[in-house]
Amino acid sequence: MRSDGIRVSAFRWVPPFARGLVRDLRVRWALEEAGLAYDERILGPDDRASAEYRRLQPFGQVPVYEENGLVLFESGAIVLHVAERSEALLPRDPGDRARTITWMFAALNTIEPRVQALAEIDLFHPDEAWAKQRRPAAVEAVQTRLAELARCLDGREHLVGRFTAADVLMATVLRILRHTDLLAQEPVLAAYQRRCEARPAFEKALAAQMAAFTPDP
Amino acid sequence: MRSDGIRVSAFRWVPPFARGLVRDLRVRWALEEAGLAYDERILGPDDRASAEYRRLQPFGQVPVYEENGLVLFESGAIVLHVAERSEALLPRDPGDRARTITWMFAALNTIEPRVQALAEIDLFHPDEAWAKQRRPAAVEAVQTRLAELARCLDGREHLVGRFTAADVLMATVLRILRHTDLLAQEPVLAAYQRRCEARPAFEKALAAQMAAFTPDP
Repeated sequence: MRSDGIRVSAFRWVPPFARGLVRDLRVRWALEEAGLAYDERILGPDDRASAEYRRLQPFGQVPVYEENGLVLFESGAIVLHVAERSEALLPRDPGDRARTITWMFAALNTIEPRVQALAEIDLFHPDEAWAKQRRPAAVEAVQTRLAELARCLDGREHLVGRFTAADVLMATVLRILRHTDLLAQEPVLAAYQRRCEARPAFEKALAAQMAAFTPDP
Repeated sequence: MRSDGIRVSAFRWVPPFARGLVRDLRVRWALEEAGLAYDERILGPDDRASAEYRRLQPFGQVPVYEENGLVLFESGAIVLHVAERSEALLPRDPGDRARTITWMFAALNTIEPRVQALAEIDLFHPDEAWAKQRRPAAVEAVQTRLAELARCLDGREHLVGRFTAADVLMATVLRILRHTDLLAQEPVLAAYQRRCEARPAFEKALAAQMAAFTPDP
């Protein structure tokens, strides 16, 4: 594979419910949209906690992005870094550029925390008493944000005029809800999600993440 | 007050536990560091849900940033926008710039969700059964991230070489823990927090937020 001097870290194994959701998907997708080739640094079960990896990623998360000596982490920061190299992801017009970055932060700081809180209840703590008591309010918190987001996307194809890095982040955040029917309750968002995930670059990125996983024994 | 054509929205009233934490603090602080003057758009109790404000901020949050017709929201995006205008907040060296943005996203997407989850338990749901059951794990989740962050800051004054926009975001995220002793348990972080909050620009920003609140009747 031709590589543009870029390497992205990913896990060799995660539980089935997490496959197709791990955050390297965002970076792979952005790179595909930008037409940049990359290599993978596939992490085994012990690598995440290793001192070597922690020097690159202090929180032991995925992905790390390496590019000719530059080492970055945080999927949002990496997607923005890639986007700054490609007008396909980040408009040059200053206003549209600023609005794209606004929606990138909105995806990760306003939508994702509520989505992730619900996913943690459902995927990690489904049988715990606190989770059962908390779940209705967690669902409602997500529904509130989805309704607000749907109002923004009603009648629009994408968050900012045309497809941008903001859609990479928003669609991968909404994807975390795939185990629920919450997106189906907001047809505008369900259509937006389908539109984003139908992009060839998304399909290539998803296939690459899935291919990196070792099959279950 | 001289204004550089910038207006920032803020609340006229929030409960005492939230005063000094509302997200416009981040933007005020960044503007003070950049030497940019701004006006305020102070929101009364009904403004947040109004159609007019929702057109600016689809989630009804604070702050909105207005600058000569450009309208932005999300404190992280606004701080980055301001930082791009000022080397005081964002280094020009491409590597340091990218690392600053990495830490901005780390503050908002890796640290803040856990910090905020604990704050919601303590400040909004202290007496609920689910919250009492969940709290020990929520504390542990925060402590894990704080220990990881402390290892990064040990022996360093700031996240990236010198004070940057990343410290604006990280220090205001850590500040959300002020009702706990969790920072005191990590002396490196407690010292970092004091160092950041001792900056004249922070003090001016905090005083401005507090001055905008109507006193309790």
